[in-house]
Amino acid sequence: MTAYGHDLNKLVEENKVPVSGSNRHAHLSTTDLEILFGAGYQLTKLKDLSQPGQFAAKECVKIVTEKGEKDSIRILGPVRSKTQIELLASDCHSLGLPVCVRDSGDITSTPGVEIVGPRGKVKIKEGVIAAARHIHMHTKEATAFGYKDKDRVSVRMDGPRSVTFHNVLIRVHDEYALDMHIDLDEMNACEVKNGYAAQIIR
Amino acid sequence: MTAYGHDLNKLVEENKVPVSGSNRHAHLSTTDLEILFGAGYQLTKLKDLSQPGQFAAKECVKIVTEKGEKDSIRILGPVRSKTQIELLASDCHSLGLPVCVRDSGDITSTPGVEIVGPRGKVKIKEGVIAAARHIHMHTKEATAFGYKDKDRVSVRMDGPRSVTFHNVLIRVHDEYALDMHIDLDEMNACEVKNGYAAQIIR
Repeated sequence: MTAYGHDLNKLVEENKVPVSGSNRHAHLSTTDLEILFGAGYQLTKLKDLSQPGQFAAKECVKIVTEKGEKDSIRILGPVRSKTQIELLASDCHSLGLPVCVRDSGDITSTPGVEIVGPRGKVKIKEGVIAAARHIHMHTKEATAFGYKDKDRVSVRMDGPRSVTFHNVLIRVHDEYALDMHIDLDEMNACEVKNGYAAQIIR
Repeated sequence: MTAYGHDLNKLVEENKVPVSGSNRHAHLSTTDLEILFGAGYQLTKLKDLSQPGQFAAKECVKIVTEKGEKDSIRILGPVRSKTQIELLASDCHSLGLPVCVRDSGDITSTPGVEIVGPRGKVKIKEGVIAAARHIHMHTKEATAFGYKDKDRVSVRMDGPRSVTFHNVLIRVHDEYALDMHIDLDEMNACEVKNGYAAQIIR
């Protein structure tokens, strides 16, 4: 069974993957978390996410650019080695930032931004991305599907706004669970709901 | 030459169409325009749009639902026989409205909303849609391409977020000019710019 209650064997047989939409969010390093929230601060879990150990925290931050600001940016835990802000393309436009569509962790030469928390501020030099859509698979799930880490596939969503997303990265790891991540702009463009089983096209 | 300066013969040869992104906007009936702005009111042109005779007006309205409100909704002219509000799916979500993906004019059983102007308010019983993507073609252009009114095609956009949009309606009329209309959510999902020449797939 997957996060949305799908039968894994049936998904493998039909070459389908459940979909989750990601809103804008922040991953913080321990250093930046402590600057923003105070020394020794620990995030409070609001709810678990589809990937094991990952959670949405109760805490939010604000980000500020020369052109504007955006508050209520949810922090996702646990802390990471580097701070990374994942925005929607629509946010980047309203904040005057270039849209850098990147895989998570690939932040070289992406825009920086000022992050504001209740106890302090931090200016990151880079780290603002629009997350490239991708599919998480546990190693055993990838074997069952016949995919390997870094494979690229197309994925079709049928509905009121049928779309095929191309060049979707498959990420395989022993700590992953089967789920395709697209952002809210992409969810709106295809009008499917969380848990929709999308068709993978090899 | 098309609105974006493309060579029409080359577009026909390559089966490509320029793309424009539409933001949220309002079409008003004369009756509703006069309630909102005063008797005998005439819209002021801000700029021409890609379709002959169509223009963005200087005037904006606000819309209000039980859950929230959205101001700065640009009016597009000229006036129409029926008022129609075209929102982004993201707007519908924040306003608590169902997302009805419809072709322009097909507003039966779509949500209503309160519209607020500087001189009055009007409550429409239906008319809020998320516009279904479509391609405008002049009759001569359609003949050159080999398409007819109401044909459905897929359209591929390549870039940082390559996407194929399926089930795209072709609308043919003597008063149309070649242009594909998608909304800002869809623009963000594929990250192309206005004027991008997209590949039509028969």
